Amino acid sequence: MHVTALAGGTGAAKLLRGLTALPDVDLTVIGNTGDDTEVWGLHVCPDLDSVTYALAGLLDVERGWGRRDETFHCRDAMAALGEATWFSIGDRDAATHLVRTAALRRGEPLSRVTATIARRLGVASRILPMSDDPVRTIVDTPDGPLAFQEYFVREHARAKVRDVRYAGAADARPAPGVVEALVSADVIVLCPSNPMTSIGPILAVPGIVDALRSAPGFVVGVSPIVGDRAVSGPAGELMRARGVPVTVAGVAQLYAPWLAALVIDVRDREASARLRDLGVRAVVTETIMVNAAHERALARVAIEAARSA
Amino acid sequence: MHVTALAGGTGAAKLLRGLTALPDVDLTVIGNTGDDTEVWGLHVCPDLDSVTYALAGLLDVERGWGRRDETFHCRDAMAALGEATWFSIGDRDAATHLVRTAALRRGEPLSRVTATIARRLGVASRILPMSDDPVRTIVDTPDGPLAFQEYFVREHARAKVRDVRYAGAADARPAPGVVEALVSADVIVLCPSNPMTSIGPILAVPGIVDALRSAPGFVVGVSPIVGDRAVSGPAGELMRARGVPVTVAGVAQLYAPWLAALVIDVRDREASARLRDLGVRAVVTETIMVNAAHERALARVAIEAARSA
Repeated sequence: MHVTALAGGTGAAKLLRGLTALPDVDLTVIGNTGDDTEVWGLHVCPDLDSVTYALAGLLDVERGWGRRDETFHCRDAMAALGEATWFSIGDRDAATHLVRTAALRRGEPLSRVTATIARRLGVASRILPMSDDPVRTIVDTPDGPLAFQEYFVREHARAKVRDVRYAGAADARPAPGVVEALVSADVIVLCPSNPMTSIGPILAVPGIVDALRSAPGFVVGVSPIVGDRAVSGPAGELMRARGVPVTVAGVAQLYAPWLAALVIDVRDREASARLRDLGVRAVVTETIMVNAAHERALARVAIEAARSA
Repeated sequence: MHVTALAGGTGAAKLLRGLTALPDVDLTVIGNTGDDTEVWGLHVCPDLDSVTYALAGLLDVERGWGRRDETFHCRDAMAALGEATWFSIGDRDAATHLVRTAALRRGEPLSRVTATIARRLGVASRILPMSDDPVRTIVDTPDGPLAFQEYFVREHARAKVRDVRYAGAADARPAPGVVEALVSADVIVLCPSNPMTSIGPILAVPGIVDALRSAPGFVVGVSPIVGDRAVSGPAGELMRARGVPVTVAGVAQLYAPWLAALVIDVRDREASARLRDLGVRAVVTETIMVNAAHERALARVAIEAARSA
């Protein structure tokens, strides 16, 4: 079964691991690059790397980012040299960024070097950036615009958010294989990622929403919101800033025109009717994943929602 | 006393440490950049870094390069990613190359970022690259040309050497401060570095030999050759390839027109007459440095040679 997933980083990683653990799932991941950044002259793709490391079994699951069994000697030496180290890069993680940065400087597209890194780390699934063109998620605050990593990592998501926008998105093209992966998928999964800063930038790339609308596959989402807040990260604050209710209905509303079903937590059972009004079928289950069995179970529920459609 | 030293890497580092340990020595180092190389997209300056680390007390004195208490997790991750790792960069060392590479890409000259790195690591002496322009030492072998690091590190100096040349030298200008440091020095020291691949590239930069000829300071060298071989490294093979005798007289011959004195090892005492014929005064002492006391003693002998001139 061809499954194509739209994914952010940490939140997506667990569900993606669950999907790859299912028999007969052939997975393609379309990853967010809106929070890419340059650190110490290195091109860093936090979401693509979290997905790649997760599927390679290398992700530090405690932190939710970077590689496990990691050291930070280079970062500490950077600090001693007077460089900013609020964005922490581990010694092993740095190798990924070095390989990518050198490839991009040679003129390789991001999609190609992303595939190379995934293959060399032993990832069987395909991982595609949403675009080879630069798209940058900008968080507008009363004190001016912040790049997403500045807002999230440097400022610890404490700034008041006025708006979220995707600089460069209007001119970006889907990376090679992205539209094909959507229109050829049996099931399209929207991972439980931040709708504003993980899924939002992907949908902002012209052609991707069109592909979702016309795709013959079943489109199922997993809600990143449980109750009135995000399971992790700043999704709530950012949804509010855009006037989107911080509820599973708010999530459904964002994806409604082309979303067939949304997997929601048992705690949000009563929202099923509201989702039905939006034309979205609610699939109710336990959505908090704290171990590999949960990851597989939630992935199975998402896939079964499509099978039973 | 203003002392200006022409320096390679490992061999020079010990004498330079000795010089900085002497009272009233104000040291400027002119470092070789002919063996600079690009590794993993990083601009690496092996000789400048060895000098900087040595004077910062950070050099791994066992290896003779890189930083002490170093780890190599990034390098191992690079290997897992399929990248060449014959040139080994440590995790802390990588920070130096990252800072330098980012500065050069911003358009900063090498001399400025070299000064920045040295200052941030607490080095009191001035460290100048011989030039901000690229000069690359090329070793010609029967199988074609090799960049110096390819010849020395990758091929372990096993290739037969036909010639040594300094690509780019003819168009290079001395870095800001280099000529001034030579003409204003009380003593100019040629460190016991490889005459072909450490001192040779410095002398190949137009204007530097002229400055040495016209400098009013006393020019004293310390021989890197003891008996019929180099104390360390491939100096012997490379001198032979250029038809230079692998003896202290061979060293004196290379620098003779403007060299006042050459510090030679007690084992080469009988070469003193030959040096005198070349117009170079021989200063005989123990030249093998195995501890800090030896480093200081040899540095003192070099400086005293100038004082007694």
